[in-house]
Order: sequence, then C-alpha cells, then structure tokens
Amino acid sequence: MIEPAMIAANSRNFSGGPGALPESVLQQIQQAIAVVPETGLSILGISHRSAWFADVVREAEDNIRTLLGLGSDYHVLFLQGGATQQFAMVPLTLLHNRSAAAEYIHGGYWSGKAIAEASRSGNIKVVWSGANDRFTRLPAAEELQLSPDAPYFHYVSNETVEGLQFRQPMGLDSVPRVCDMSSDFLSRPCEAERFSLIYAHAQKNLGPAGVTVVVVRDSLLQNSPTDLPGFLDYHSHIKAHSNYNTPPVFAIYVVLLVTRWLLHDIGGVAAMAHINQRKAELLYGLLDQSEGFYRGHARPADRSLMNAVFNLATPELEQRFLSEALTAGFHGLAGHRSIGGIRASLYNAVTLAAVEELAQFMTDFRARHA
Amino acid sequence: MIEPAMIAANSRNFSGGPGALPESVLQQIQQAIAVVPETGLSILGISHRSAWFADVVREAEDNIRTLLGLGSDYHVLFLQGGATQQFAMVPLTLLHNRSAAAEYIHGGYWSGKAIAEASRSGNIKVVWSGANDRFTRLPAAEELQLSPDAPYFHYVSNETVEGLQFRQPMGLDSVPRVCDMSSDFLSRPCEAERFSLIYAHAQKNLGPAGVTVVVVRDSLLQNSPTDLPGFLDYHSHIKAHSNYNTPPVFAIYVVLLVTRWLLHDIGGVAAMAHINQRKAELLYGLLDQSEGFYRGHARPADRSLMNAVFNLATPELEQRFLSEALTAGFHGLAGHRSIGGIRASLYNAVTLAAVEELAQFMTDFRARHA
Repeated sequence: MIEPAMIAANSRNFSGGPGALPESVLQQIQQAIAVVPETGLSILGISHRSAWFADVVREAEDNIRTLLGLGSDYHVLFLQGGATQQFAMVPLTLLHNRSAAAEYIHGGYWSGKAIAEASRSGNIKVVWSGANDRFTRLPAAEELQLSPDAPYFHYVSNETVEGLQFRQPMGLDSVPRVCDMSSDFLSRPCEAERFSLIYAHAQKNLGPAGVTVVVVRDSLLQNSPTDLPGFLDYHSHIKAHSNYNTPPVFAIYVVLLVTRWLLHDIGGVAAMAHINQRKAELLYGLLDQSEGFYRGHARPADRSLMNAVFNLATPELEQRFLSEALTAGFHGLAGHRSIGGIRASLYNAVTLAAVEELAQFMTDFRARHA
Repeated sequence: MIEPAMIAANSRNFSGGPGALPESVLQQIQQAIAVVPETGLSILGISHRSAWFADVVREAEDNIRTLLGLGSDYHVLFLQGGATQQFAMVPLTLLHNRSAAAEYIHGGYWSGKAIAEASRSGNIKVVWSGANDRFTRLPAAEELQLSPDAPYFHYVSNETVEGLQFRQPMGLDSVPRVCDMSSDFLSRPCEAERFSLIYAHAQKNLGPAGVTVVVVRDSLLQNSPTDLPGFLDYHSHIKAHSNYNTPPVFAIYVVLLVTRWLLHDIGGVAAMAHINQRKAELLYGLLDQSEGFYRGHARPADRSLMNAVFNLATPELEQRFLSEALTAGFHGLAGHRSIGGIRASLYNAVTLAAVEELAQFMTDFRARHA
C-alpha cells in the first residue's frame, strides 16, 4: 500500500531536474491517475479535445498570467520538445529574412547548447562568454556591448549546471529580450513584461518532463515565416490554444496543479522568492562558514538561488559525501556530469525543512571528515 | 480515498485517444507517483540521467523489439512531438537531395494531415485518394501504380477517424515503407521487418500522450542531412539512446509498463490480435444485425479492428445515444469532430468484457428507439 510518508520523502529530492513536486500536488496526481472526479476517467485517458481539458489549459494559462502579471498582448503556450526545441524555434522564427546577428550571452553549459543550436539556424553573435573563467561568474550589464539593431538578445537567466543566476533582466529595452528561464521560472518575480519571449521546460519548478511553457508577446511574431513545419510555428499553437496536435495532457494537468499551489498555497512568486531566498541563504551560509571544507563554484554575487554548486577537497571525499547523503535520504546531489562535484538544487517544491535537514547533514559530515 | 472500482471504470473508455490503459498498469502508476521502490523517489522526480531510467528505456526498447520480432538493424526511439512531428521529420530526413517524389496514400483524415505537412518539406505525390468515396474504403494493392524510384512510400495503417484499416503491408518491397501506425501499433502482428520506418504516438495502445515510438532501420538514414536542428535529426536520438534532451520520463515509464503487460499478461501481439478480433467481431456483428439502425461507415472489407465508426438515423438520435451511453458509464463514444457520428475505439486496453457491456447497451438502446 501507498503510505503518506513515501510521498513526503520526495521533499528531500535535490535533483537538478526532473525535480521535486509539492507533496499536496503528488497526492492530487495519485487521485487523478485513478479518476478525475469531474470526468469519471483517469487523467491518462481523458480526451485532449474535451471541454474539461480546454478548461485545464485555460486555467493553467490564466494562473501563469496572474503569477507573472502579464497583459493580454502575451500568449502563454504549452509545447513539447523541451528548451532544446526552443533553441531552434527561436532563431527559425526570428532570424527569417534578417541579416543582422542575434546576440547571445554564453553564461554556462545551457547557454552553450542554445548557441550551438541557434548557429545552425541563423546568424548569431556571442557578446560575452564566461568560458575563460570556467563559468564561475556572469557579466554585469556594463560589461556588455550590445547592438540596438540585433533582431533579438538571448540569455539563460539561471545556469543550472554551474549555479549562476542573473539578478535582473539583461539587455536593451529596445531589442527583443528572449530568455531561457527553464530553471528559475516562477521561482521569483521576473519583470516578465520586459521580455518578448520566455521559455521554460517544466521539470524544475513547474511539473514533470514533457511540457515547455512559452510566453510570447504577440508583436514579436508579426514577421515570422509562414513555411515552417506546423509544429515549429508559434502561430499554429497560438491559434489552437496549445492543442495543435495532441498535447501532453498529463504534464499540462500537473502544471495546472503546481500553479494552483503557487497561487493559493504559497501566495505567488514574491512569497515563493522569499522562501527560496531563505533556503539559499541557509545553504550558502553553511558553505561560507565551512572554512573551505565546502567550496562554492560561483562567485558569490552571481550565486543561483536554485542550484548551489560546490566541491569538497577531493573527488573521493565528494563520493563519500554523495553516498552518505543518499543513505541519509537525500537524493540527486551529484553535480552535472559535465563538471562533477556536488549540486543541491533548491527548486520551489524543495521545502525549507528539507534544506534545514540537508544543512544539518552537511554540518555533521564536516564534523566527521574535516 | 481511491477505490479500486474507480480504476476499473476506466476499462469503459472507448475514446479515440488518449484512450484506456490496463487496470493493472494504472495501479502500478499510482504506486510510482508516490515512490518507485528501487529509487526511493516519485516517478515524476527521477533524473533522466539515472541508471534506473536508462534501464527503463532499455527494457521498453527490448520489449518492443521482442513484440515485433525486430532484428538488430533497427533502432527503437522514444521521441516527443507526436505523429505530427514525424509528418515533418520523415520528409526532412528522406527527401534531402532527392528529386523523385515520395509516394503517399490518402486514406483518411490522418494521412491527409501527413500529406499536408510533408508537402511543405519536399516533393511528394498522392498515388491514391479515398476522398471521392468520403473515405469509406481503402485501396487494394493492385489499384496502386507505384514508382520503384520513389525515395519512400508512406501510408497510415489504421485511419482512426474513419475506422479503416489495411489488412497487410502495402507498397513495393524495393521502396522503403514508412508507416504511421499510431492507432494500431502493437495491436496485431505487422511484419515489422518489411517496413523501413514505423512511427506511433503512445496515446492509443501504448501509454499517455507525450511520447512517440519510432522504429527505424539503420540503413534508411545513411544519406540523411547533417544540418537539421538536433532534435529533428534521428541520429541525435539514436546516439543518445532517446536521451538527447530531457525525454518525457513518465510517459516512457508508462510505455514500459504497457509493453510488460502485453508481453507477460497478454502473451504478445498475436494473442492481443486474437482478443481485438473478438471485440471487433462482436461490435460489427451487432451493426450488421441491427437492420440499419446502426450504420457502419467503412466498407466491411476495410473495417478497422481499432475504431468502429457508425451512424444512427439522425443527429438527434446520435446525441441521445451518446448521452444515454455516458449515463450508463460508457465514455468517449462521440465521433471525431471532422465527421461526427459515433466511434467506439477498441484499443488494446479496452477489455472484451467492456465491449460486451457496450454491445448489451446498444442492443437495449435499439430496442427502446427502433
């Protein structure tokens, strides 16, 4: 039988993603796998053309509008293909018939992926790279030399692998801002209306892998090409209310539940940011007071509230840390395979209590191994 | 609380898709939402880079190989984007640098969608269309004039909307066969090795919406282009074992559970076909003996074992049928919005018992309204 304690154990999931979901959301999903009361059917067997599902999409969209304070000139879409598909859709859409280069910040692993993919589809220019600093810092606004003629300016707001996060919107207000917010979407207020396009896959703060939220200002798409395959054309999805072809019904339903939780249980993104701030301060405070036992990767000014990335003195000690942490019930703490080390991801659904438990474990571990 | 009877009610889901899932699979999913015992985490919070998930992909792939009897020259992939994405990926991949037209059968609504999408990406030719017969029949092999020089030949094995199904592989053995089997994949033996590429989204016979299975012969991809966006390049997905970017972990896990059920509980696709045959015979027998009360859409020789499409004398009577059916606990019987009427979809997870109950309801309804 399924014990509530089993669900509660998920709050100790510090994975970089797919990550933790709120306990109350997991309980609702369990119920919905058997039956969604309004429909008499499992969530997995409900038609994507049903009135019930149209309401799910509408409410999820409205909740995101409310959480971000978006005006009616924005569309909110639920697509497939992850951020990776957006890496291509953005230049395919916005660099059509444009000769000027789109400008990209190379702030870490994921912006590198976005740049590689965009290069295949159009003319882009990297205006800043953290490669020479092993992606331990992000640029200040005044370090960037940006062109007012760029078709758009792209960056990743939170670099999940290296644990770096911008504190405020970058770029010029006169050039369309396009931002991959996959790992910090809805984790804090973001001045959404200063962006022309925001995309975020669900599996950090929003829901399960398999759906990606796109927020796009209508005017950005005025000159987009008309000969793209239908599923790569934002217009197809806008016209069809995210039902151009069968959407990932289950994943979108979970996003709805998570946005309800954010709105009604947490109280919105400012309240969420306050909790996230406390979680991050607790963990970074512990690193800073560890006398070099735990060594943060990112420059303190650019530390991410979502992903705390750090090292111990040796790879052997890191392995020991991971193995003892797992025994103690803390999951997903291994760093990204590209850089190793330790990463504690502190997404919305990771509770302050879970972070306090992790901090206690880290204090004890240091006492045993320092 | 969740009652087992609630899960059991899902077996009366006759929807065209997303459709029913086996009761035992729904029970396992409920458990996995709380915790997958081997991992200590909810299925929604497990990393796509974990060893556990690599095993899930490997076993799901192996099960499909076993069910179809595929040799090692085939790749089995789990992608996003549905059949719609395949409508574009196939011509983008196979018509690159080719001047000869790919040949398509226009057998119904869904092959029409495939043709429209393929036309944007390359040179294609429609070799047969059922449009003038309102898609009530499919061509016999000898009706087709096929070119031995076509880069590939494409058709849809089961037309979900009109309820038409091919009885055997169409096309020339010398031209690569590409087939959309979305609505009859793994419902019967299909001589898979006579195909070069088969694709099928999950939400009929395989799992929830959000994942698409592609079976592709390695040699078909020898001359494919190298400049496609990565997620549209079959090679990217082959190299990464369906983990090129974060895959829909949950949907793939459900596909694994369904393939286990097919292999171990049902006993394979031949055994499944036998059950599906009995379900369809029961329902079509009832139509044929109804003295015109229930009027089948498809010519009997081309009737689908998966989707029984029929009309009643008037739209009003059809509405009454749908409303009384729903009251009696039968879901998803409305015909596709493009043609209306009634559609009873008899996918793998719809039990013979559920079809017997529906047949009884239909007999009673006729007695009340004839």
